[in-house]
Amino acid sequence: MKLKSFFFAVVIICLAVTICHASGTYDVTHKNAIVLAMFGTTVEPALQGLLNIRSKIIDNYPDTTVRIAFTSNIIRKKWQIRAEDTEYIKAHPEIPADILHVKTPLATIADLQNDGYDTIVIQPTHISMGEEFLDLQTYVDALMNMGTLKKAKYKPFHKVALGRPALGTYGTDHHYVEDIDVAVKAMAPDVKLATKEKAGLIYMGHGNEFFPGNGGIYLELAAKMRKIYPDVVTTIGNVEGYPAIEDVIETLKLYKVKRVVLKPFMVVAGDHSINDMAGSEDDSWKSVLEKNGFEVVVVTEGLGENDNFADIFVDHASDAAMDAGITLK
Amino acid sequence: MKLKSFFFAVVIICLAVTICHASGTYDVTHKNAIVLAMFGTTVEPALQGLLNIRSKIIDNYPDTTVRIAFTSNIIRKKWQIRAEDTEYIKAHPEIPADILHVKTPLATIADLQNDGYDTIVIQPTHISMGEEFLDLQTYVDALMNMGTLKKAKYKPFHKVALGRPALGTYGTDHHYVEDIDVAVKAMAPDVKLATKEKAGLIYMGHGNEFFPGNGGIYLELAAKMRKIYPDVVTTIGNVEGYPAIEDVIETLKLYKVKRVVLKPFMVVAGDHSINDMAGSEDDSWKSVLEKNGFEVVVVTEGLGENDNFADIFVDHASDAAMDAGITLK
Amino acid sequence: MKLKSFFFAVVIICLAVTICHASGTYDVTHKNAIVLAMFGTTVEPALQGLLNIRSKIIDNYPDTTVRIAFTSNIIRKKWQIRAEDTEYIKAHPEIPADILHVKTPLATIADLQNDGYDTIVIQPTHISMGEEFLDLQTYVDALMNMGTLKKAKYKPFHKVALGRPALGTYGTDHHYVEDIDVAVKAMAPDVKLATKEKAGLIYMGHGNEFFPGNGGIYLELAAKMRKIYPDVVTTIGNVEGYPAIEDVIETLKLYKVKRVVLKPFMVVAGDHSINDMAGSEDDSWKSVLEKNGFEVVVVTEGLGENDNFADIFVDHASDAAMDAGITLK
Amino acid sequence: MKLKSFFFAVVIICLAVTICHASGTYDVTHKNAIVLAMFGTTVEPALQGLLNIRSKIIDNYPDTTVRIAFTSNIIRKKWQIRAEDTEYIKAHPEIPADILHVKTPLATIADLQNDGYDTIVIQPTHISMGEEFLDLQTYVDALMNMGTLKKAKYKPFHKVALGRPALGTYGTDHHYVEDIDVAVKAMAPDVKLATKEKAGLIYMGHGNEFFPGNGGIYLELAAKMRKIYPDVVTTIGNVEGYPAIEDVIETLKLYKVKRVVLKPFMVVAGDHSINDMAGSEDDSWKSVLEKNGFEVVVVTEGLGENDNFADIFVDHASDAAMDAGITLK
Repeated sequence: MKLKSFFFAVVIICLAVTICHASGTYDVTHKNAIVLAMFGTTVEPALQGLLNIRSKIIDNYPDTTVRIAFTSNIIRKKWQIRAEDTEYIKAHPEIPADILHVKTPLATIADLQNDGYDTIVIQPTHISMGEEFLDLQTYVDALMNMGTLKKAKYKPFHKVALGRPALGTYGTDHHYVEDIDVAVKAMAPDVKLATKEKAGLIYMGHGNEFFPGNGGIYLELAAKMRKIYPDVVTTIGNVEGYPAIEDVIETLKLYKVKRVVLKPFMVVAGDHSINDMAGSEDDSWKSVLEKNGFEVVVVTEGLGENDNFADIFVDHASDAAMDAGITLK
Repeated sequence: MKLKSFFFAVVIICLAVTICHASGTYDVTHKNAIVLAMFGTTVEPALQGLLNIRSKIIDNYPDTTVRIAFTSNIIRKKWQIRAEDTEYIKAHPEIPADILHVKTPLATIADLQNDGYDTIVIQPTHISMGEEFLDLQTYVDALMNMGTLKKAKYKPFHKVALGRPALGTYGTDHHYVEDIDVAVKAMAPDVKLATKEKAGLIYMGHGNEFFPGNGGIYLELAAKMRKIYPDVVTTIGNVEGYPAIEDVIETLKLYKVKRVVLKPFMVVAGDHSINDMAGSEDDSWKSVLEKNGFEVVVVTEGLGENDNFADIFVDHASDAAMDAGITLK
Repeated sequence: MKLKSFFFAVVIICLAVTICHASGTYDVTHKNAIVLAMFGTTVEPALQGLLNIRSKIIDNYPDTTVRIAFTSNIIRKKWQIRAEDTEYIKAHPEIPADILHVKTPLATIADLQNDGYDTIVIQPTHISMGEEFLDLQTYVDALMNMGTLKKAKYKPFHKVALGRPALGTYGTDHHYVEDIDVAVKAMAPDVKLATKEKAGLIYMGHGNEFFPGNGGIYLELAAKMRKIYPDVVTTIGNVEGYPAIEDVIETLKLYKVKRVVLKPFMVVAGDHSINDMAGSEDDSWKSVLEKNGFEVVVVTEGLGENDNFADIFVDHASDAAMDAGITLK
Repeated sequence: MKLKSFFFAVVIICLAVTICHASGTYDVTHKNAIVLAMFGTTVEPALQGLLNIRSKIIDNYPDTTVRIAFTSNIIRKKWQIRAEDTEYIKAHPEIPADILHVKTPLATIADLQNDGYDTIVIQPTHISMGEEFLDLQTYVDALMNMGTLKKAKYKPFHKVALGRPALGTYGTDHHYVEDIDVAVKAMAPDVKLATKEKAGLIYMGHGNEFFPGNGGIYLELAAKMRKIYPDVVTTIGNVEGYPAIEDVIETLKLYKVKRVVLKPFMVVAGDHSINDMAGSEDDSWKSVLEKNGFEVVVVTEGLGENDNFADIFVDHASDAAMDAGITLK
């Protein structure tokens, strides 16, 4: 695994105060926040994708404070160094303070608790239900299990809700197949470009070589795209795990595609996009495809920059809040 | 979802007694057992698949008592009625007592605890890491959390270990890709048959329409089979969720396959196999394939009847025991 | 610690069926049961105390099946041997079948789950909130954490509620001080006897030498009894831990009491009562008191035989059900 | 319940770095810290007690960074206001920065995690095992349950250990009776003073009116003190719950004590000590005792200022670390 500059999770906190009349003898004032949890990136232009998602959440819930969290230790460490580097700060006035001083999801949530927030919606910017999402779920369970014998009043967290990834999660509450449908619609501009280019469309997802079945949701998305947009052959592969670029090539050959648009299926177009996908090295996807005789049109833009895709995370945060009985404002 | 007579989990208990000298003031005698947890089946001949797995575990750990558990409430209820039906029992002398009186995994494990067993290896007969496996994992966690303030001595369970599904699970301890390799090898007889029949090979898995990515592991298996056995085009679809029979047909057409061997990728060849796969109704896979112009050779045999595949569950139970520091005998 | 024939927990299961229209697409039929969890006893006449509590629960919820569970491994093992001993059974026709075949709380609850019950009220017959009660609470938490990704429908347990001990538990829902008041009222017959005997009153509780503060609730009860019944000096000591018989003697001397009624403060008058309290050996409480110059009137009757005290467990089961939104019938 | 300026928990973090060669493919560098968790106080001179405990931990583990946490929301809020108040800061140069900017235990621990610490020893300054200690234990369990599917490497916390209260906790690892013995020895100076004053000794503990048995450990301590120091009649009561000042007076009368030394049995001599104990209002313990004819010698000094008592917390942190296999330096 290479050094990643991708993100999977940012933390934005939307703040709203509700005063509840709890049963019995005391009043509890609940304060709400949304935390956007991303993997993170160190590539400055790539921040656009995640900042776009944050803007959309703020626009949707203007009375709610917003904070960002990065899950990657390596990426966070680099930002900690930059935050101490006055020359870097002078050279990069565009970097917002909450990126410079970004913390882990736990530290971001705990700071909220220290400031009196007890109701948290965590919205990850994960693409699929996999290792990172399930890990985050253990955080949510753990935070809700921090208890008090005298219940309710002294519990550190009233409610902690977790929004689902872009392509949905298990269970019957929100059928993941409908989440795929929404994502397929959001990809229309890419299909338009491929049509214009008279090309097939290859997405590069991240994937996970240690999570069986992780490629399934990507393949289901590609199959749905070929059905909804029958004029463009859409295929998908992952940087890690199945399906790999070799599987993509096998599929393209079956469909007799010769020319392709190559684009990341990741929230930010960071290190993977720049190097693994579009890089000039021999083992970049671009190189491998060209070596196999394909003409390649590269597009390095993160999904977060696609407004319709960014909206998915806003909708999923809203669903999570509603399901948990949290009213965001 | 139809009435299922498939199984996913049987419970066999292998018993072995270890006397441990616990730290401090008391001696604790640990007693081991293996529980084979299946979905279950009501189709008597289909029991062969699961009884074969049980036999192999007994052969491997002859000093360990063996019990079976069924997870399906509907199937268990039917066996409860049969257990009261003297005519049924007379007519079916081949049904073993532990199938007639089969209980839930929890009740099977709790009976063991009541009998003094405190160290349990649960081996599910699941094919893939999905909803049912993750559910079972919550049982394991819960049983281990049944605690005692005076630790160790009074804890109801010393160790509870969970074996992984046939096609592996997440994590780095046992790379799931290697589990796929083992399964691919075990399927050699099917490839032989398809070669003889000059046909492609279609597997019908169970699948899960509410677990995103569930189809991925099946597709990865099929891709690996096409690589290892290049002379036979292997495809796979699921009864529930993606990839469906339509996706299978799309793939077969790309590969220009006209004739196929159709076989269940399930531990027992029960209701799904008899009806959904090989049935005479219009929407059975056989009917759909024939309607689409394919010649179909049907094989109704459960994976449990394949000795090499049955061995996978024995190996996974052994791994789980070893990883947990449990010595089975 | 001696071999105990005391009980702390019986399991009775009261059964009632409720049909719920769950949100969404399926109907779930919830079946209720009450489990009375005791430590258990092997002393046949001592069973009266616990059978009295069971009768009262059955009388109160006549449409609810009743099962008993014993937590003590040693005691259960003895009953398992008796259950195989036809001579014993012939000689003891008064022993009910559910005592003969009594299981652990977990096995009793799991059998209920196997029989389709998903809503369980566990009522321990513990006297005080201590080690055994907190251990049982981990069971309840664990059973509720046995989950399902598809929530609700397949969860093994809909609700598991735990009734509080006779002298209450922590928290603000049911102030333990009020539980002490109820218990103090129930002890009126003992005070009457002591008054008639012109004696002080000594209770022998069980106690726990490894649970700090365990003696506090007993001392608070004794202090309240001296306040409510000022004509009788009530003191209390424990078999294990503080306050011991020496502390009782110190208090009696301060109050200048010379003659005492000595009675167990345990649900059954089993082995501790017969031997540790009233036995003829040198270190029985009776012997120690007499050696210290006290006149001793021994009463060997379990609290479970006191109807008003037995009612406490019925009330606590009712409270637990009501707090959890369970309607018992 | 009055506004409390008492503390029960401070957080000090001792830092030490260990490089471990984890099994398998990666190296993990574990970083240790100790967090001293107190209730907190707003009374400046009362800080001495807790700062003394911190100093002792720093002296004992000089290579370990130290941070403090307060559990009381009300007290923390007051410090947040003071931290913004430049006049206050100028007037109180003696207040250390980590008190001014003190956070909740969770936020303190999470900041450590954000800074790369994964091994935390939490030492509460609780006197007894009760509500606050059990609450803190749920935090520890929760933090350890924040997991990762790929285990070990990405788990936010390697180990989180919780030190026991001054008077011990349940279980057999460290018998609480021995903790009482150590505390009894530490109280020698108070006995010396009472002897000199020809007086009995009354301790005012905090107590908890919603935690049954909470008074038991205090009464056991007082009984042990009367045994070890037979020349001074030691009694103890609580601000909240049993035993109350009325119970203390009843005991003093039995022992025919007329003159008493009155001293808090709390880590800091804060608001309870100044007002509830020694205040001039009618319902202060001093007033009540004098009204009942006692001569009262008041001592307002927190247990944290007693070096031998402060050492108890250092020892308990060391035990917790050792039990968890953590090497502090």
